[in-house]
Amino acid sequence: MTRTIVESRNRTAVIGFDQPFCVIGERINPTGRKILATELEAGNFETVRKDALEQVTCGATMLDVNAGVVYNSNPNPNETEPPLMRKLISLVQSLVDVPLCIDSSVTGALEAGLEVCNGRPLVNSVTGEEDRLESILPLIKKYDVPVVAISNDDSGISDDPDVRFAVARKIVERAADYGIPAEDVVVDPLVMPVGAMATAGLQVFHLVRRLRTELGVNTTCGASNVSFGLPNRHDINAAFLPMAIASGMTSAIMNPVRPHEMNAIRASDLLMDHDKNGANWIRHNKPKGTPESSARVRRRGERRRRRAA
Amino acid sequence: MTRTIVESRNRTAVIGFDQPFCVIGERINPTGRKILATELEAGNFETVRKDALEQVTCGATMLDVNAGVVYNSNPNPNETEPPLMRKLISLVQSLVDVPLCIDSSVTGALEAGLEVCNGRPLVNSVTGEEDRLESILPLIKKYDVPVVAISNDDSGISDDPDVRFAVARKIVERAADYGIPAEDVVVDPLVMPVGAMATAGLQVFHLVRRLRTELGVNTTCGASNVSFGLPNRHDINAAFLPMAIASGMTSAIMNPVRPHEMNAIRASDLLMDHDKNGANWIRHNKPKGTPESSARVRRRGERRRRRAA
Repeated sequence: MTRTIVESRNRTAVIGFDQPFCVIGERINPTGRKILATELEAGNFETVRKDALEQVTCGATMLDVNAGVVYNSNPNPNETEPPLMRKLISLVQSLVDVPLCIDSSVTGALEAGLEVCNGRPLVNSVTGEEDRLESILPLIKKYDVPVVAISNDDSGISDDPDVRFAVARKIVERAADYGIPAEDVVVDPLVMPVGAMATAGLQVFHLVRRLRTELGVNTTCGASNVSFGLPNRHDINAAFLPMAIASGMTSAIMNPVRPHEMNAIRASDLLMDHDKNGANWIRHNKPKGTPESSARVRRRGERRRRRAA
Repeated sequence: MTRTIVESRNRTAVIGFDQPFCVIGERINPTGRKILATELEAGNFETVRKDALEQVTCGATMLDVNAGVVYNSNPNPNETEPPLMRKLISLVQSLVDVPLCIDSSVTGALEAGLEVCNGRPLVNSVTGEEDRLESILPLIKKYDVPVVAISNDDSGISDDPDVRFAVARKIVERAADYGIPAEDVVVDPLVMPVGAMATAGLQVFHLVRRLRTELGVNTTCGASNVSFGLPNRHDINAAFLPMAIASGMTSAIMNPVRPHEMNAIRASDLLMDHDKNGANWIRHNKPKGTPESSARVRRRGERRRRRAA
């Protein structure tokens, strides 16, 4: 049974086929968030604080931390990202005690994050590109941490799921050459917008099943990408996640502040038998004003208690 | 490719692996509906009329019709159900032009329904019980209609999904003996309440996949049963349906008047590539006041139109 272990200072989370779905909160990321980017360059961390606390309150298992600000004062991310990553990781782990996901395309920023991060973070990400394999995998081995493997390579992102599967296999094999086990490689099969590619959903469900049965790896994805450009994205996401989970997906990088998607995940955990006695479902869904005991699951053959008893 | 053809007087619907999910409206059924039962015994069909029209308006592909009223004046359903079934089928097909599903455990009521029903209805149901196989399958052959096969037999409903699969295979084989093709057998693998059996969801997903790959049959289920006894049933159902669809389920007997479940099915159709150009999704989900054209799916490489253009 594949188990990817991630840790904060005091807490361990397991990504695995027999585990509740792992929600990796995506909010601490200035990409496409102009106000946050401006705040970060100015040394203002209020939004980061708020996002860290709110995402954990809403049920994130882990938090992604991305420091990819293009500074107006210095456009070289190799200089600006490592110190900002160090600062963000230190700040976030002083606020919340969940495992982190260090997210950057700048190798120096990943290493800076790894230096200051408590426990066993997830690194996001390596790809099948030769220079990325050669720069990231030694770091993964050195720090003994798991890594997200994105299934594109030097030829780009293939529309053909079989090519994406082959890229994932190549990354898993190259990781093994470095002594990194498959359980420490979490593959992102790449989720395309279904509005741009009609088979996008089917491709993911098919790939996740193959990655799980043939490579034995955990999987993740940027879930909301599937609904890009379409109306009522939350309802699409809230169907996509259960479908991906039924196909074997074990984590997603997503916005945990969205109640609709999060309850779809709780229901999926219940239906996958990853929510013992339905306790998590009942805690989040009992009717308001109902004491927990009266909303609990009745087992077969168990009689309804009389009110007078 | 398995295709189960059902027809009303003027309309054909196809249940199939490459088709939008088939929603069989469950409302016209007096079981557990005391008021409806009382109305039906009194010859009052107002609720039936309302339920027929409303379910089709809400998007039902087919309507289930069940006449299982236990009359206060005559407790013998062999006498009371056949004439009531005849009446209900005639009434419903005078109101709406969708294929019907004739639902009874009384063989005489099924035959009465078949005599008056237009087109090619689905018969609900046969089981693996010997007396049911021997009474129902000749009727299915005689009228050349498809049948729902429920995977229990003379030993009852097994908790073991492999036993339920074996029962389904037995029914498909017995149907073949009568000259009924597998594509005219729609298997119900039986959905247990997940609150009573923690593996209920997993069992269904596993069974649906096996039924599809090993027997090549379409599948259906009483979807809402999975959430029985738990709080916030609609959110459980709205996750269960996408998960079942991703596993290969092609129809369900359910309440189409519930918008949450129905939109989960529309999203699933979109994600399974069973909604050409996302047209159905966009029609039901475009923001209010938005002309259809501006909400349509943008294809890759297609430029956003300038407002000034």
